[in-house]
Amino acid sequence: MATFELNGKNIYYETHGEGAPIVLLNGIMMSTPSWQMFVPPLSANNQLILMDFFDQGQSHKMVDEEYDQALQVAALKGLLDHLGLKKASLAGVSYGGNVALRFAVEHTEMVDKLVIFHAAPKTGAWLQDVGKGWILSMDSPENFYNTSIPVIYSPGFYNNNPEWVAVRKNFLTSHVFNNQDFLQAVARLTRSADNYDISDKLDKITAKALIIAADTDPLTPYADQKALAEGINGAELILLPNCGHASMYEKPTLFASLIAGFINTDFTGF
Amino acid sequence: MATFELNGKNIYYETHGEGAPIVLLNGIMMSTPSWQMFVPPLSANNQLILMDFFDQGQSHKMVDEEYDQALQVAALKGLLDHLGLKKASLAGVSYGGNVALRFAVEHTEMVDKLVIFHAAPKTGAWLQDVGKGWILSMDSPENFYNTSIPVIYSPGFYNNNPEWVAVRKNFLTSHVFNNQDFLQAVARLTRSADNYDISDKLDKITAKALIIAADTDPLTPYADQKALAEGINGAELILLPNCGHASMYEKPTLFASLIAGFINTDFTGF
Amino acid sequence: MATFELNGKNIYYETHGEGAPIVLLNGIMMSTPSWQMFVPPLSANNQLILMDFFDQGQSHKMVDEEYDQALQVAALKGLLDHLGLKKASLAGVSYGGNVALRFAVEHTEMVDKLVIFHAAPKTGAWLQDVGKGWILSMDSPENFYNTSIPVIYSPGFYNNNPEWVAVRKNFLTSHVFNNQDFLQAVARLTRSADNYDISDKLDKITAKALIIAADTDPLTPYADQKALAEGINGAELILLPNCGHASMYEKPTLFASLIAGFINTDFTGF
Amino acid sequence: MATFELNGKNIYYETHGEGAPIVLLNGIMMSTPSWQMFVPPLSANNQLILMDFFDQGQSHKMVDEEYDQALQVAALKGLLDHLGLKKASLAGVSYGGNVALRFAVEHTEMVDKLVIFHAAPKTGAWLQDVGKGWILSMDSPENFYNTSIPVIYSPGFYNNNPEWVAVRKNFLTSHVFNNQDFLQAVARLTRSADNYDISDKLDKITAKALIIAADTDPLTPYADQKALAEGINGAELILLPNCGHASMYEKPTLFASLIAGFINTDFTGF
Repeated sequence: MATFELNGKNIYYETHGEGAPIVLLNGIMMSTPSWQMFVPPLSANNQLILMDFFDQGQSHKMVDEEYDQALQVAALKGLLDHLGLKKASLAGVSYGGNVALRFAVEHTEMVDKLVIFHAAPKTGAWLQDVGKGWILSMDSPENFYNTSIPVIYSPGFYNNNPEWVAVRKNFLTSHVFNNQDFLQAVARLTRSADNYDISDKLDKITAKALIIAADTDPLTPYADQKALAEGINGAELILLPNCGHASMYEKPTLFASLIAGFINTDFTGF
Repeated sequence: MATFELNGKNIYYETHGEGAPIVLLNGIMMSTPSWQMFVPPLSANNQLILMDFFDQGQSHKMVDEEYDQALQVAALKGLLDHLGLKKASLAGVSYGGNVALRFAVEHTEMVDKLVIFHAAPKTGAWLQDVGKGWILSMDSPENFYNTSIPVIYSPGFYNNNPEWVAVRKNFLTSHVFNNQDFLQAVARLTRSADNYDISDKLDKITAKALIIAADTDPLTPYADQKALAEGINGAELILLPNCGHASMYEKPTLFASLIAGFINTDFTGF
Repeated sequence: MATFELNGKNIYYETHGEGAPIVLLNGIMMSTPSWQMFVPPLSANNQLILMDFFDQGQSHKMVDEEYDQALQVAALKGLLDHLGLKKASLAGVSYGGNVALRFAVEHTEMVDKLVIFHAAPKTGAWLQDVGKGWILSMDSPENFYNTSIPVIYSPGFYNNNPEWVAVRKNFLTSHVFNNQDFLQAVARLTRSADNYDISDKLDKITAKALIIAADTDPLTPYADQKALAEGINGAELILLPNCGHASMYEKPTLFASLIAGFINTDFTGF
Repeated sequence: MATFELNGKNIYYETHGEGAPIVLLNGIMMSTPSWQMFVPPLSANNQLILMDFFDQGQSHKMVDEEYDQALQVAALKGLLDHLGLKKASLAGVSYGGNVALRFAVEHTEMVDKLVIFHAAPKTGAWLQDVGKGWILSMDSPENFYNTSIPVIYSPGFYNNNPEWVAVRKNFLTSHVFNNQDFLQAVARLTRSADNYDISDKLDKITAKALIIAADTDPLTPYADQKALAEGINGAELILLPNCGHASMYEKPTLFASLIAGFINTDFTGF
């Protein structure tokens, strides 16, 4: 529940608990409150650090400014410096996974372990065009919801949890997707990932990495996760069956236990 | 290059070649010219029959009328009767797969073999909402393109074929998606599939069936294809790796050879 | 480093560390020393309990006696009673997974969490016949090695780690597979799993369960793991790509972190 | 029902039907009668050519002679020359797939299309050791059966077809695996594949190729099939779910229709 300044702009963050630090990085439409239910399990044995990227939650809104994810990497660097942390583990989802990976490429010595959910080595033309579709559908809450939300979930989860979906659809269309400031921030965040490409820098990463793929995730398909794991020295790869892009909602128990398990367990070899 | 009438409304169809008849049924945004390059391989040893469903291509447009896929099943029945065919093999893609499956449930004795690409036992809430997103994005050609087209392809195909994609994008946004008659027809076709559900009737199908799934197809994920194959007595199941919902464009050689091979080859048992 | 008696027969066990107890149950040819390198990571925050089943390691050898896995379930029950534990988490590999699952069916209230690697709901005819092949190949160390060992590993791991394989092959053929007492015990253990079948009792399990499958494991193929996870209420399922039946050797970091992560992390819901 | 001589040794072959020629090449323990039920579907529109490799069926037995698969490639070349065929399509299973692939590397101009079931780019240490286990288990029909046969089938197929398995087990153990001449020939055939490695020559193949993998086939796992397809220019790849190494027995309808469909259908491009 605090902020620090980067170049005169506020970045909001929270820390919970004590122990080896874990920074848990948001997906594109998320903000720190999205992680509310993960705070108890992930702060039980660790210092859990949450932050809002620029254009998210309570952090500075980049109105009328364009940027790319280098800005968010700088925000993360600023936060670790602000907290006096020389090294931390990073866990990231989608957009947050991109930032974690770029950070691990550029600040190798500052990353302990890396847990990446649903991120690819680059943003390809397919995902750029899907993102353009999201931005073009911001004319009404219903349009934005139907264009951007179902594709985040596996059809199985979406079809089998109609009440959960109905509550969420109502909340998003009534309270979030009718907020033009929010939508413009999402549009900028979306564009900021368009030039993301670390496909030829993966071998610079020295952190122990766990890559987690979902088998029904069109946004970052398994082939990309596999390429990511194969490009990072010694990376581990796990596949979640019957799961979409938002594994933190579809498989929350696994989501929490994979992060805590990989970061807090050290196997030192045979 | 002919038509017949159903209840006073024209249905356009074509026949090519001679031999055991195959009716090849369109996906939702397709029409008979979409199959141009498949006519030579599929009419070499068979009578290939193409048709435009209601609201497609040169068939009757259902302006201001709502309907469901029972109408298309009736159109197919009318066509077979018109051609004097007591039995034919059906191959269908997505929407056309739904119609083929419903036809095989209702007119068991008229179906020889069944080859289904990328169709599910029912339209779930996920696909209904995705379809709503398409309809809500019809305000501009760019919006409709970005909302409805990338998701039809696997990211691998889309990213690796930028020239093919660019030509198609330009054609669709300049000549097709700016046509409000076309878009309104697509909207009606989309709604007409919303109540599709034969999940408890699959065991009525007596035709030998081949179900073809693609591993990177969010619209009809593998779990649904597997359920479809398991529900139809004796159905065969094939998985196409690194392929999206539009296998006729991503894997045309396989698309043609799977249809011709399954329909024209009879294994009578050990 | 202790024993207790069940019906006058010794069962060997070890405990390491303090905390919520985890019993880690051996695969068929394993014994407590097989887990040596997993003791540090798994006893760091937990009481790790290892045991040799009957006919394994330093436990009683059932010479000339036949039995089934009910005996090993009784041994596990005896051990927990001996240690005064009313509840423990169980992690089991293959044969040890069978025992853990049977125990969780029969002593529901004594199982906290359940982590099952590479076990099926039943021993089918295929695995029974493979097991017969092992027993029939005990005439020479080389025959037994080549018949029983490669199939335990994924071809990728085996082919890419020739030195590790060579050391292990030499050790096993020189010091283990020439020991007729060991081989006869393995034969009895193999037969003791033949009648294993809890396929219609999975719904009795109340423990939170994590099922871990490997995609290149012929002994307990993915279809069986999926059926296992679907049969246990609320069970989680994970797939390890490019991994065989012995994930503790092929993916030791994941093996340790999946156990510790699932057992020590509690997500209590949204 | 004829023979020709290669270096003074008889090779047995059969031809059935007329049309574009297809040579269907045996797996290691197969011989021409194994294909009996595939003759009608595959000779309906093609000249189907079957042959026994050296050490198979009615061809010359290489008693006390060692060789590698180059000999079988020469046999195939001899057969095509004998029949006056300048070009033919090749379909091969496992061992026969190896020979087909080597032939396609060495005699590019003689191969029309190539359909490969369950063969890898090379014989790795894993498969060599499995093969050694087969040879070491030839002391009794029961041992050889249990060591070599179950692993050829998917557990699902084997468990769900107990009568088929029982008939086959009885036949093999009573009439085939008690024949030392047969077993010694199988041992030589097995050894002849040990040095197979065309992993760096795949790009020489110019034939249109279809690679067919099965998802429950430990002998040639999917990762190898994928590598094979990726190494051959323009090769197509198909995955058969719930299928083992012997797809001709588990999925005979697909087996026949995939061969006929791919060889007899020409898609010439968009």
